[in-house]
Amino acid sequence: MSQNYHKLCQRFNRLFQLSHAMTFLGWDQAVMMPAGGNQPRANALAELASLRHELLTASDVGEWLDQAARESLSANEQASLREMHRRWRRSSCLPAELIHAKTLAGAKCEHAWRQQRLDNDWNGFLGNFREVVKLSREEAQLRQAASGGECDTPYDALLDLYCRGDSNQFIGQCFDRLKAELPALVQRIIEHQRSRETIQITGTFDVSQQQVLNNKLAAMLGFDFNTGRLDVSTHPFSTGVRGDQRICTRYRDDEFAQSLLATAHETGHASYESGLPEQWNGLPIGESHNMCIHESQSLLFEKQIFLSKAFNQHFTALMHEKLPQTQIWSSEALWRCYTVVEPGYIRVEADEVTYPMHVILRYEIESALINCEMEAEDIPDAWNDKMQSYLGVDTRGNYKDGCMQDIHWTDGSFGYFPSYTIGALNSVQFFHTIKQQNPDWQDRFARGDIQFVRDWLQQHIWQHGCFMEVQDMIQAATGQKTNPEFFLQHIRNRYLNEQY
Amino acid sequence: MSQNYHKLCQRFNRLFQLSHAMTFLGWDQAVMMPAGGNQPRANALAELASLRHELLTASDVGEWLDQAARESLSANEQASLREMHRRWRRSSCLPAELIHAKTLAGAKCEHAWRQQRLDNDWNGFLGNFREVVKLSREEAQLRQAASGGECDTPYDALLDLYCRGDSNQFIGQCFDRLKAELPALVQRIIEHQRSRETIQITGTFDVSQQQVLNNKLAAMLGFDFNTGRLDVSTHPFSTGVRGDQRICTRYRDDEFAQSLLATAHETGHASYESGLPEQWNGLPIGESHNMCIHESQSLLFEKQIFLSKAFNQHFTALMHEKLPQTQIWSSEALWRCYTVVEPGYIRVEADEVTYPMHVILRYEIESALINCEMEAEDIPDAWNDKMQSYLGVDTRGNYKDGCMQDIHWTDGSFGYFPSYTIGALNSVQFFHTIKQQNPDWQDRFARGDIQFVRDWLQQHIWQHGCFMEVQDMIQAATGQKTNPEFFLQHIRNRYLNEQY
Ligand SMILES: [Zn+2]
Ligand SMILES: [Zn+2]
Repeated sequence: MSQNYHKLCQRFNRLFQLSHAMTFLGWDQAVMMPAGGNQPRANALAELASLRHELLTASDVGEWLDQAARESLSANEQASLREMHRRWRRSSCLPAELIHAKTLAGAKCEHAWRQQRLDNDWNGFLGNFREVVKLSREEAQLRQAASGGECDTPYDALLDLYCRGDSNQFIGQCFDRLKAELPALVQRIIEHQRSRETIQITGTFDVSQQQVLNNKLAAMLGFDFNTGRLDVSTHPFSTGVRGDQRICTRYRDDEFAQSLLATAHETGHASYESGLPEQWNGLPIGESHNMCIHESQSLLFEKQIFLSKAFNQHFTALMHEKLPQTQIWSSEALWRCYTVVEPGYIRVEADEVTYPMHVILRYEIESALINCEMEAEDIPDAWNDKMQSYLGVDTRGNYKDGCMQDIHWTDGSFGYFPSYTIGALNSVQFFHTIKQQNPDWQDRFARGDIQFVRDWLQQHIWQHGCFMEVQDMIQAATGQKTNPEFFLQHIRNRYLNEQY
Repeated sequence: MSQNYHKLCQRFNRLFQLSHAMTFLGWDQAVMMPAGGNQPRANALAELASLRHELLTASDVGEWLDQAARESLSANEQASLREMHRRWRRSSCLPAELIHAKTLAGAKCEHAWRQQRLDNDWNGFLGNFREVVKLSREEAQLRQAASGGECDTPYDALLDLYCRGDSNQFIGQCFDRLKAELPALVQRIIEHQRSRETIQITGTFDVSQQQVLNNKLAAMLGFDFNTGRLDVSTHPFSTGVRGDQRICTRYRDDEFAQSLLATAHETGHASYESGLPEQWNGLPIGESHNMCIHESQSLLFEKQIFLSKAFNQHFTALMHEKLPQTQIWSSEALWRCYTVVEPGYIRVEADEVTYPMHVILRYEIESALINCEMEAEDIPDAWNDKMQSYLGVDTRGNYKDGCMQDIHWTDGSFGYFPSYTIGALNSVQFFHTIKQQNPDWQDRFARGDIQFVRDWLQQHIWQHGCFMEVQDMIQAATGQKTNPEFFLQHIRNRYLNEQY
């Protein structure tokens, strides 16, 4: 009898249902809630988070985990127990005082940052940020100590939260390859694009018509409106549970591409969650894998499907119908417009080619910071040097468009940034395999058929949840571990050779 | 030190935040959720309900309650402790097996009823319903036994859940007065209304314009869109927390009165919740009082404000602007149309005058049923006799528009019906006092000013939460306990004399 394992399943199901509540309360907060709900909602979410933490770290859970390890379990149950143990360790290894202190320091720093960023006030920010760094270093060291040798450095222990299975060393190797190739590639692409004509999108585009178009796009990409909604929020995001996915995009009336790219992106995230294994519902093993996988799914939908010439050709016909003003632009002209490469200050506005350099810069700084090889006051100089050398951009004195632009560090979310670019590498590698197995992919895209992509992802990624370690899953799906060469080749093909 | 009392406050705050989650998950389910969310949402709500029940009935709570009773507490804290004790007793006095059995039997009966009602299948319904009655009787007897002499009959113990403080005997006395007067009054009113001309509302009324009009109405009645939303649902309802009230109405395109009446009604419910005492936030004493008070607030907004001639005159001007087709009808013509009295089969479609007879009939049947003075199979005959004698309506053989029309009994929610009519009596009694204190009320209503009504309710009802026993609060506010004479006089004034 696997009595203790079953007690764990019951407890994790309870945690799952608390998370369900927090998921939809969070969605409501971002999409529906009137301003007066801020304080009561914050109180409710804080209490539910405490309750969830208590239920996960209660002493009975530790005992059940110990005893379940000696029970006779199937291979699936063993993998399930492994994931339960990881969730428990992550939550149990920090003293309550540190969690509390970091939450307070993070909230204070983030809150002040919203104004300090506008004021370009680095020194003001630094005053709060030093405490966030100090507490994050403590956190990282404690997490490393609790990892049982799994984490080589303190920074590895923070990566473990978002990129679990991809070590600092492995990520560093991938990024070194990109650093060696991308800066020169960017220059060649800019040179190449100078020789072609690129339209400027101008005009006023009816938002309700854009909404119709975005709904159609989501549906074309396989989003099922019986099991989800598409709404509007300040920042696009995706959340929900299997059976009820909520995605959000945002609209501008002076252009239409941003909303479409966001809808494609969030449809990728939602599709992954929808495809997770039903038999492990409510258990950690049934959850989505690390953020490097999650982001690979969204980027695959956004960059590999939506931005492909073939799909864009199909979609442009629909756009010409729903937004008649766009009929003056051919699908080829729009594609060129969507794929302009231009180094800039801001990560979230960066194109597919320069984006990794923004991430690598942040990765190099935050890993040094957490591993005590750099101090918070050294960030602006490091930022300027790297921006200059990676992208030829001068950010001296411009903190607000430089090292103060992102929210991630303000509350101590170190270790997240690499997932954007490892996700990009994974997405290209997955799509490379899909193309090899479907030589007629362009014909299918040109007809609006992307179901074969979903089928492949369902089989090789979605249905596995957290059953495998991440690089084992990638190896099983593509024949090798995450390899940056696929991404570099994709960049050359799309941006120098203007293939797909 | 009131250490145990403070532990109770912490626990009840945790319960309050779990209820916050269930409140907004419930709103989302009714208003936003796609069909695919049904199963995961039902699972989440069931688990949160179990968790809440466990946290409320845990043995530590019983000990804290015992020990807090010996602590030195302020008058407020003593009242607060009294309400905590009631919540705890209500949840602790039933064995888990009975709760579980009743939940299952109720869900089964309600589910089957949805089809059986359409099929007019009384015998099919009776098969499931007998079990619901049996378990509800057990529940009532156990609750009565646990009441420490507070409840005279088993039915009193179910009334305690919805009408706490208003006993079976007290309600029976009120209803006897109504029974003695209303049937003859109804006949006189019908006679009177036969002599006047009444318009028929016909046409097609743009729903988006109706939405604008309903938003305006809610705002005129004091609904604050910074602390709430007005949406659409299958059945109008109101929910939320202070700072974030969610009300819903529903629209038809062949008439406009239904949506407006529902919006006024739900604004009353929401206003009450918004006005609850902030200093007792999260504690039982800070919650709304029984359903006889809650319904009195909604009915006051719907029947006393919105349906008054003076307010209707003001509002019709706005309606003429937003729905230009309605300009052919004067406010007087519309008022007559809104106040037509006509006995019918269906409670939820009944007018203000005949509605109490629908409730009294149900009260007489359900109290006899729970007190074992009647059996389930006797219901149709009792129903027919009473409908014939109270309203002159023949329901023989017509179960679907007779005893099978309501959802309440299907899952064993006995004891709820009286609150509709006691609420109506209270609303008229409150408004009578408001009118006495504001002789210029009609002039104010005619200008759209209803703030003085809100101020009175805030002072005499809303701010008190559950601090006082219900009839003490009514006595303090109006000089006497719930008294049906105010309602009867209101009916004569409005429907025979066509005053206000
Ligand atoms: Zn993403
Ligand atoms: Zn109501």
